[in-house]
Amino acid sequence: MPSRSKLYPTPDDAETAFYEAFERGDLAGMMTVWAEDDDIVCIHPQGPRLTGFDAVRESWVQIFAGGNSRLRVRTTESRRFAGPNVVVHAVIEVLSVPGQQGPTQSVCATNVYELTDYGWRMVVHHASPVSEPAPLADDPAPPAHTLH
Amino acid sequence: MPSRSKLYPTPDDAETAFYEAFERGDLAGMMTVWAEDDDIVCIHPQGPRLTGFDAVRESWVQIFAGGNSRLRVRTTESRRFAGPNVVVHAVIEVLSVPGQQGPTQSVCATNVYELTDYGWRMVVHHASPVSEPAPLADDPAPPAHTLH
Repeated sequence: MPSRSKLYPTPDDAETAFYEAFERGDLAGMMTVWAEDDDIVCIHPQGPRLTGFDAVRESWVQIFAGGNSRLRVRTTESRRFAGPNVVVHAVIEVLSVPGQQGPTQSVCATNVYELTDYGWRMVVHHASPVSEPAPLADDPAPPAHTLH
Repeated sequence: MPSRSKLYPTPDDAETAFYEAFERGDLAGMMTVWAEDDDIVCIHPQGPRLTGFDAVRESWVQIFAGGNSRLRVRTTESRRFAGPNVVVHAVIEVLSVPGQQGPTQSVCATNVYELTDYGWRMVVHHASPVSEPAPLADDPAPPAHTLH
């Protein structure tokens, strides 16, 4: 397991490490990306809101035990909001199974990184399934499907 | 309509204005909270990812036309990550209908604010329905329900 030293000199380095650990099902690698903090927030697609390092770690234990580590992730359409110590990447994750044809799944993710004493770490990962607008509709957001 | 001057001297002021405009169904008030930027991102619960001021505005036109302005919103369990020009509030929104009994709805929201030339403005609102963990389960995240 890597030491919790200044592994990630930039938010991009932390993000790359996050998705690589996800693809490999690498729990130790995954948890070195996260800040060791009681206030970190992780929302997996259609999952509950998890707060704190221990709860977030346990969720990844379960996800990797479920074999999701076979998935490959490509991120697209990143929108970035950057400050000196807090950076936000709003991305679309395109998930696929290597060697398998067929439709991919897409997930909206808002990733927040904070500059800590140990370099840049993830503090929020909010993921939810991408809902596609109806192909023939002019409306960008179908209001019947939204709470707000 | 308020001018797009420095209305919101703090991220909290912008957040208060966001939820007040939502409750009132006040389109002009809502859109003064958002940064006038092509890169803003808004994801309504179970809706598509909307980017840019015009798409975000159109979604609120539709939502307010649908009568959701009767909802009341209380935010709880805020987790905050703050820098000098970018601030993130990860909150739970508790939505209710005034005068009506019965269960409320909860939404996880990640709100990102940026300090612009016009004061603090919202640049990301990522909302998704709260999924409750099964009441008797020890597991904080049911892996069968999550993509990752």
